Amino acid sequence: MRPSGRKTDQMRKVSFERNFSKHAEGSCLVKFGDTHVLCTASLEEKTPPWLRNSGKGWVTAEYGMLPRATGDRMKREAAAGKQGGRTQEIQRLIGRSLRAIVDLEALGERQITIDCDVIQADGGTRTASITGAWVALHDCLKWMEARNMVKVEKVLKDHVAAISCGIFANQPVIDLDYLEDSAAETDANFVMTGTGAIVEVQGTAEGVPFSEEEFLTLMRLARGGIGELVQMQKQALL
Amino acid sequence: MRPSGRKTDQMRKVSFERNFSKHAEGSCLVKFGDTHVLCTASLEEKTPPWLRNSGKGWVTAEYGMLPRATGDRMKREAAAGKQGGRTQEIQRLIGRSLRAIVDLEALGERQITIDCDVIQADGGTRTASITGAWVALHDCLKWMEARNMVKVEKVLKDHVAAISCGIFANQPVIDLDYLEDSAAETDANFVMTGTGAIVEVQGTAEGVPFSEEEFLTLMRLARGGIGELVQMQKQALL
Amino acid sequence: MRPSGRKTDQMRKVSFERNFSKHAEGSCLVKFGDTHVLCTASLEEKTPPWLRNSGKGWVTAEYGMLPRATGDRMKREAAAGKQGGRTQEIQRLIGRSLRAIVDLEALGERQITIDCDVIQADGGTRTASITGAWVALHDCLKWMEARNMVKVEKVLKDHVAAISCGIFANQPVIDLDYLEDSAAETDANFVMTGTGAIVEVQGTAEGVPFSEEEFLTLMRLARGGIGELVQMQKQALL
Amino acid sequence: MRPSGRKTDQMRKVSFERNFSKHAEGSCLVKFGDTHVLCTASLEEKTPPWLRNSGKGWVTAEYGMLPRATGDRMKREAAAGKQGGRTQEIQRLIGRSLRAIVDLEALGERQITIDCDVIQADGGTRTASITGAWVALHDCLKWMEARNMVKVEKVLKDHVAAISCGIFANQPVIDLDYLEDSAAETDANFVMTGTGAIVEVQGTAEGVPFSEEEFLTLMRLARGGIGELVQMQKQALL
Amino acid sequence: MRPSGRKTDQMRKVSFERNFSKHAEGSCLVKFGDTHVLCTASLEEKTPPWLRNSGKGWVTAEYGMLPRATGDRMKREAAAGKQGGRTQEIQRLIGRSLRAIVDLEALGERQITIDCDVIQADGGTRTASITGAWVALHDCLKWMEARNMVKVEKVLKDHVAAISCGIFANQPVIDLDYLEDSAAETDANFVMTGTGAIVEVQGTAEGVPFSEEEFLTLMRLARGGIGELVQMQKQALL
Amino acid sequence: MRPSGRKTDQMRKVSFERNFSKHAEGSCLVKFGDTHVLCTASLEEKTPPWLRNSGKGWVTAEYGMLPRATGDRMKREAAAGKQGGRTQEIQRLIGRSLRAIVDLEALGERQITIDCDVIQADGGTRTASITGAWVALHDCLKWMEARNMVKVEKVLKDHVAAISCGIFANQPVIDLDYLEDSAAETDANFVMTGTGAIVEVQGTAEGVPFSEEEFLTLMRLARGGIGELVQMQKQALL
Repeated sequence: MRPSGRKTDQMRKVSFERNFSKHAEGSCLVKFGDTHVLCTASLEEKTPPWLRNSGKGWVTAEYGMLPRATGDRMKREAAAGKQGGRTQEIQRLIGRSLRAIVDLEALGERQITIDCDVIQADGGTRTASITGAWVALHDCLKWMEARNMVKVEKVLKDHVAAISCGIFANQPVIDLDYLEDSAAETDANFVMTGTGAIVEVQGTAEGVPFSEEEFLTLMRLARGGIGELVQMQKQALL
Repeated sequence: MRPSGRKTDQMRKVSFERNFSKHAEGSCLVKFGDTHVLCTASLEEKTPPWLRNSGKGWVTAEYGMLPRATGDRMKREAAAGKQGGRTQEIQRLIGRSLRAIVDLEALGERQITIDCDVIQADGGTRTASITGAWVALHDCLKWMEARNMVKVEKVLKDHVAAISCGIFANQPVIDLDYLEDSAAETDANFVMTGTGAIVEVQGTAEGVPFSEEEFLTLMRLARGGIGELVQMQKQALL
Repeated sequence: MRPSGRKTDQMRKVSFERNFSKHAEGSCLVKFGDTHVLCTASLEEKTPPWLRNSGKGWVTAEYGMLPRATGDRMKREAAAGKQGGRTQEIQRLIGRSLRAIVDLEALGERQITIDCDVIQADGGTRTASITGAWVALHDCLKWMEARNMVKVEKVLKDHVAAISCGIFANQPVIDLDYLEDSAAETDANFVMTGTGAIVEVQGTAEGVPFSEEEFLTLMRLARGGIGELVQMQKQALL
Repeated sequence: MRPSGRKTDQMRKVSFERNFSKHAEGSCLVKFGDTHVLCTASLEEKTPPWLRNSGKGWVTAEYGMLPRATGDRMKREAAAGKQGGRTQEIQRLIGRSLRAIVDLEALGERQITIDCDVIQADGGTRTASITGAWVALHDCLKWMEARNMVKVEKVLKDHVAAISCGIFANQPVIDLDYLEDSAAETDANFVMTGTGAIVEVQGTAEGVPFSEEEFLTLMRLARGGIGELVQMQKQALL
Repeated sequence: MRPSGRKTDQMRKVSFERNFSKHAEGSCLVKFGDTHVLCTASLEEKTPPWLRNSGKGWVTAEYGMLPRATGDRMKREAAAGKQGGRTQEIQRLIGRSLRAIVDLEALGERQITIDCDVIQADGGTRTASITGAWVALHDCLKWMEARNMVKVEKVLKDHVAAISCGIFANQPVIDLDYLEDSAAETDANFVMTGTGAIVEVQGTAEGVPFSEEEFLTLMRLARGGIGELVQMQKQALL
Repeated sequence: MRPSGRKTDQMRKVSFERNFSKHAEGSCLVKFGDTHVLCTASLEEKTPPWLRNSGKGWVTAEYGMLPRATGDRMKREAAAGKQGGRTQEIQRLIGRSLRAIVDLEALGERQITIDCDVIQADGGTRTASITGAWVALHDCLKWMEARNMVKVEKVLKDHVAAISCGIFANQPVIDLDYLEDSAAETDANFVMTGTGAIVEVQGTAEGVPFSEEEFLTLMRLARGGIGELVQMQKQALL
């Protein structure tokens, strides 16, 4: 039995609130249950130095958490003077996930930075971030299309979405909330495209190592969930 | 004529959304027009080192801005590796403003940290932060009262709220939005209590120095606005 | 009764020692009683990046304190690895105060940096810094005039000086020394020009909030003191 | 055809040089072809703060690269003033991998730090680090056993080793060297125990997302290679 | 011919102004010609952690330079966020030099920190710092003796002073000023006690390596100069 | 009697392993007994900013220590976020020592960075670094000569090598190992050329100041040892 009463293959309620920000070229407040992440897309008309004169653009991401997004207040990274290892790991993952479905040449020599800021955390912040970041990126490209800068369908090759799965109380379950996450034996994050191809897989044994069979079960659960998320992304764009 | 069409003594629409955060002991999303600040109050059962065994507690504040809260994306302070001078100035101001209306002995040896994070900025983030922080602090104290830790009316001696005033297009106006703020000749922030006493005054000539008469006009405008803000705080607590 | 025996409207003995530094284009050791600040002006033939090709120059300030300028030794900021919030607040204030009386276009595309380093502290370091910085800036401009780079009277539109006032033992007093400053209920700093216009006002209730009447009394005291300081600046230039 | 002429399922020559360091409680210079990593295990008789009085110990890892371990010299992280995101990601992975096969209660309230320093890099530094770190950890525990501090078989529950696999020139291959790694479409790292259970899986599409079938092929290759690595670890201990 | 017209064995005019600081337990403004260094001694009633309960105290030093102490303004180390290599080298040298003539057991479990801050630089700042630091340290110990904390002659075993020598225009000369220092082929700093024993020797070939004979000539010059400096220290204490 | 049983003028076994690194233009693993330092030379086709268009190149050095190179594990400088004072002092010494025997004009507008990383430490890491760095530098220049970039004999004017001497148990001894170093009363490092000229001398009294006679004895010991080291460098190049 899951603490939330959900079925093993049941994700939390997911919603996307587009145009959340007045300023950003694209933005989306994504909610996976009580996990709320604000994703904003910021366009700059220049690339990082290593892409100058390459004809290619870049998509990158930064991740942060408000200090009291969590049950106990965490030290503000700006006050601590550096971003922790976990933060860097997550923002690198978000960036790679988005670049996997973007044609950087079609984007042209520009950079889009997706900021994913966790307003409230209840497990699964990185998967919510990726899933919402896609919507913010899409809307930024729409904004650009309206100004004849790009064609959205040229730049955005596919959807991308992500979900966590894990083994909780000996049961493979999808979309772990904080209670489950902190007690799970195994924790895996899957990032897949709209056509079901894999962009990233990260599986970690928190305690006991897991078997290949268990891992395949988690991957099957994830495939189902990501399919649903992609449908919800499509719905949100209507 | 103000860009927003407001009258010179007319503040923007102000709202308080209490209990915005699932985790914090007190929280409030305060809006002054398009300026939105999330204020959370976090209670810790220990004081800073210099107050150990003094019988007194402490109230402090931290301030941050999401990178794309502004028209142009700003570098994330956590990535830059330090908090800028403006950030430090503001968070020190918020802390001092709150401590002016708190009885630190009645609080006991505890610390309450108010995090003010700007979700969207359109001028006046520091004054919105102070005004919303008071609500978050109040709700944190209520939470404590419900657990027999303190009496709210012993700790919280008064209301505190803040507003900016400035001289825009040769007119003294209240509650400057970003357009006004960036063009104002003079910019002043006032922090006052519910009984009309002054906690902080900060007046700055951005271009031409100003006269004492001008300053007094701004102070009169502020007194009116802060009176309204205190009424709205009271309304929000009902 | 003030600890120093001064009258309520009596400033400490103020002196300016020009050309204190062999190397700087302008320099001044300013003393407000036992508060001694070395102000040096350094000219650079380039502006900050955001002013390139704007035809305008820049005046900025940095502030520091020797570790044992104070009663107890303070950690050296260079060893701590960052400038504290108070340091940043003060150096921003000094820079703004000077820019208020400088014509940046007449200066041309150059930067003048005023370093204010507190050799000995006894309260009022920021007001002494501003008052002495004006002299160092003036002498730097004279140095430039001697080389046909600028006309002093074109660049320097007015004097600027600063003084603190506060309520100590229920009495409004001017130019607080450390003993008064640490016990004052209210502490205000005023920056005004030679013609009596206001550049900056900062009033802070350290304990009990103050009334508008009290604030106006402090402003009146400050106006008198700054008038005297401007006379002393003029005297020092003879 | 692989640049090195290896078969698709052929790892590079692997060797372990134990007791490489005069000072460390356990140490091992591990070579995967031209990738050389020095792993040292350092024992401390105290745990991190969050484990005080828990009866449990801790195993952690740090990772570094000599500046000229790579083809082009990289900036020294100590000179840059921080560890990069990649470094933090890898050292967190090594630590988790080791803790998965350690009984932290049997270790007692002590900390073992495994430093993995890359002397020369040619792809696969993280997998070589994990595989060599296990040997250093084992020898540290032997050193402790000789002093009656622990029983090795109580603390060390299993072997752990790691290998990279990827799709290079449309072929799934094992143990990518630098040439392959920089051209691979997909890059995956597997960490498994001596009994074949999975500790960590990380799969990343560098360009085109990959299919589940491709991923399973990589996992099969990895399982074979890790089986060999565990045999070589056993051989090295004789 | 030396730029200053001095003879090869002639030091610059040296002076010590004791009790320069109102706050410090001991202080001295030392001048070697146009090189001016403020040395303050600060007493703390605790030792560094590694000396707790050892019965011994510690003497340490910190060194800094005001940004415009030099011909061109140097970046403020506090703003740069770290102390440079040269600063660290010098402050370590000052600390070692003082500890060589202090009986740390007779000092007792206390720490004296000598801050040497260069107000104006014209070559030889480290040697002026050491020579002036001794006076500040002496006066701090006198302050302590007056409070029955120590006996000066028990703690302070000898004088210590320092001078630079170098080969300038093929001539061995003493006490190089900035013009000489920046053109010297060889630069050596000597730290010696009142009894002529050597505490530190640092000789560096800036361009062409030097012979043992040249080095011995420099050492002889230094011995003479340090003898004079010790006499001046004694004079200053009268 | 020395702990190692060596005679007072007997250095430890010294060896040079050239071409230790696959990637560097020149490299050498130098061993002075149990002190092992990896020296790599990295060529860059650009100079530091201050030498642009000067026709001159630059040789610089960086120094590091693996965390467990020492008896007790030391904090990793990259994790600590800065290089310590000792590290900076040593890397500045290595750079100066090499530049003393290099013709920077003959090198042309290029920079060679010598990284000296201590794999294992047992005293004398700075002297081993300098002695090995010369070999790495030589081999880098040979690499360049083979590509017609420079003539080795034009750039490399002489050998350079270094040795420590000290007074241990009242005996002047050469090449102190860790046991001797930590107990020595006096510690001196000498850097000399192949022709016996002095590049750097650093003598430090750890406890009791030393006499000129003692210092001259140490210098004589050093001269003998460095003569041997230069012969070994020549041997290693055969």
